[in-house]
Amino acid sequence: MRTFLDCIPCFVRQALEAARFAGSEVSAHEYLLRETLGLAARMDLSQSPPAMGQIIHRRLRELTGVADPYRAVKQRFNRLVQSLLPDLRRGIRGSPDPLGAAVRLAIAGNVIDLGVCANLSDVELYVAIEQGRREPLLGNLEEFPQAVAAAERILYLADNAGEIFLDRLLIEQLPTGRVTLAVRGGPILNDATREDAEAAGLAAMVEIIDNGSDAPGTILSDCNETFRERFAAADLIVAKGQGNFETLSDVPAPLWFLFKAKCPIIADYAGQKLGAHVVMRSQAPPCTRALAASLLAADESRAIESDS
Amino acid sequence: MRTFLDCIPCFVRQALEAARFAGSEVSAHEYLLRETLGLAARMDLSQSPPAMGQIIHRRLRELTGVADPYRAVKQRFNRLVQSLLPDLRRGIRGSPDPLGAAVRLAIAGNVIDLGVCANLSDVELYVAIEQGRREPLLGNLEEFPQAVAAAERILYLADNAGEIFLDRLLIEQLPTGRVTLAVRGGPILNDATREDAEAAGLAAMVEIIDNGSDAPGTILSDCNETFRERFAAADLIVAKGQGNFETLSDVPAPLWFLFKAKCPIIADYAGQKLGAHVVMRSQAPPCTRALAASLLAADESRAIESDS
Repeated sequence: MRTFLDCIPCFVRQALEAARFAGSEVSAHEYLLRETLGLAARMDLSQSPPAMGQIIHRRLRELTGVADPYRAVKQRFNRLVQSLLPDLRRGIRGSPDPLGAAVRLAIAGNVIDLGVCANLSDVELYVAIEQGRREPLLGNLEEFPQAVAAAERILYLADNAGEIFLDRLLIEQLPTGRVTLAVRGGPILNDATREDAEAAGLAAMVEIIDNGSDAPGTILSDCNETFRERFAAADLIVAKGQGNFETLSDVPAPLWFLFKAKCPIIADYAGQKLGAHVVMRSQAPPCTRALAASLLAADESRAIESDS
Repeated sequence: MRTFLDCIPCFVRQALEAARFAGSEVSAHEYLLRETLGLAARMDLSQSPPAMGQIIHRRLRELTGVADPYRAVKQRFNRLVQSLLPDLRRGIRGSPDPLGAAVRLAIAGNVIDLGVCANLSDVELYVAIEQGRREPLLGNLEEFPQAVAAAERILYLADNAGEIFLDRLLIEQLPTGRVTLAVRGGPILNDATREDAEAAGLAAMVEIIDNGSDAPGTILSDCNETFRERFAAADLIVAKGQGNFETLSDVPAPLWFLFKAKCPIIADYAGQKLGAHVVMRSQAPPCTRALAASLLAADESRAIESDS
C-alpha cells in the first residue's frame, strides 16, 4: 500500500506523540516535529506509510539517545496480557471452535498499537479483549482453517508487544513443528522484538527469527537474508497488524492478514469498515515463487523487446 | 495566543481539507500539502495560529486561481440561517432575557467553522442551533449586559458567513447607533466579508467596515488604519469565534470573546472545557490606552536605565 495524502497529517501527529512519549523536553518535541515536517514535505509517496514511521522513530532514538523509548510500556503490556492468559486459554479450550476463538483473541490484541492510540489504558485493553471475543470477523475466516491444515511451513509475523501473548494462544492452535515466528529486528514503537517473544514463552514452542529491520511493518528490501529466505519458502504467512498489511498488501505471497482496522485509510484500502476485525487472504496473487518468476520472465522479455 | 505544537498536525489536516474543498485535482492537493509542510517546518511559533491559516489559504487561492473558493458554501449557509431567522427572532422576543437568548444563538452559530469541520451538514447546523438555545454559557455572562449598557462605541468583530445572520439577531439587541460591524478584508475560509454582512441586511442597521486583512482572525498589525482606529476608540469589542480569540487574547483592550470552544488547545488556553459556549471578558488588562501608555512609558524608562 502506498502512502495516501491522508497519512501525512497522521505522521505529524504521531511524531509529536512519540516525542512526548519519549521525554518531557519541549525543545526536543519541537525539533522532532519540525524534522518530520521537512521529511514529509519531500517524501516519496510510493513508499508504504511504515517507511516514514521507521525514519521518524530512528530520529527520535538519535535525538533522545534512548535505544528503546517504548521498553517500559512494552513490558507493561506484556505483564497485563500475561495475567489474562490462564482465563483466555480456558475460554479457547472450552470453545466449540478453538482455532476461531484464538484468532479472535489474537486480533483483539492488535488494539495495543501505540502508533494509533498513544495512551491506551488498562481498562481500554480489557474492554477491547472482551469485545474482541464476540466481534464478528470479516474477510475469509471460513477458508483459514483449511489453509492452516494444508500448510507445511507457516511463518508468523508478530506485531506488538503485549499482543504477542495473544499470538501465543493462536500459535498453540497451529500444527506443532510447522511454525516460525518472526519479530522486528530492533526496537520500533511498541512492536514486539525477540525479548517480547521470549517473555511470552515462545522460544520453547517455535523457532524465533528477527527480520533485521527496524520498520514498523515488513519492508522486504530492508529485511535480512534469513528472513527473506523463510518468507519465500513459507506456504502460509500470518501477518499480524496494520503495519504488516501496509507493507505487504501488494506482495505476491501466501499471506493472511489478521488485524483490527484502526485507520480509515487502511480500512478503505482493505475494503473493510473502520474498526473491523479482519482475517483476510492476500488480494495479491497468492502463488509466490512460480508467479513471481513468470512475472519477472515476462518483464524481462518485454524489456528485451523494447530495447531491440 | 501563540501557536502550540498541537496546532501543527491540525494545520496539515486543514490544508489538505481546504485543497480538497477547492477542487478535485489530486496533484493540487499534494502540492498545497507539501507547501504547508515546508512552511510549518520553518514556522515562527510565537505567531498566533491564524497567521498560518492566512498563508495556507493565500497559497490555495494562488494555486487554484479561484479568488474565493468558499463563496458557494458561504452563500449556502447564509440562505440556511436566513430561513430560520423569523422563528429564532420570535424566540428571542418571547424570552424573559432577550439579550441572553440572542447571545446564545450568536454563539451557537459559531459552529459554522469550516476550518474545524469541513463538511458541516444542514442537519448538524440545525441541531447545533437548537442545542445552543439551551446550552449553559460559561465565562462572565452575568457582567455582559452591564458592559453593553455602559458602552458608547461598540465594535462587533464578525466571524463566519451564515453565523453572521445570528450576529444580526444579537446586534438587534444592542443599543441603536452605537455599533460598528467589522468583517474580514478579503475572502478567507468561510469567514464573513462585506458581501455576507450586506446579505444579512446589516448595512441598513450599522456601519460596516472591513479590517483590510485576509487572516482568519484579527491580526492587528495586518489590519488597515481605519479598523485600528475604531479598535483603539471602542469601549466594548465583541469578538466572535475562535480565530478572533486566538489573535486577540493577549491584546489589552475591552474585549468580550463569544465563541464555541471547538478545539482542545483553545479551550484549554481559555480555561474552558471542550465544546463550551463561552462569553468571556478579556483576561488581558481591559483598560487599553491608559494602561498601554503607562506600560510603554515603564518600558522606555527601563530601556533608558539599562542603556545608561
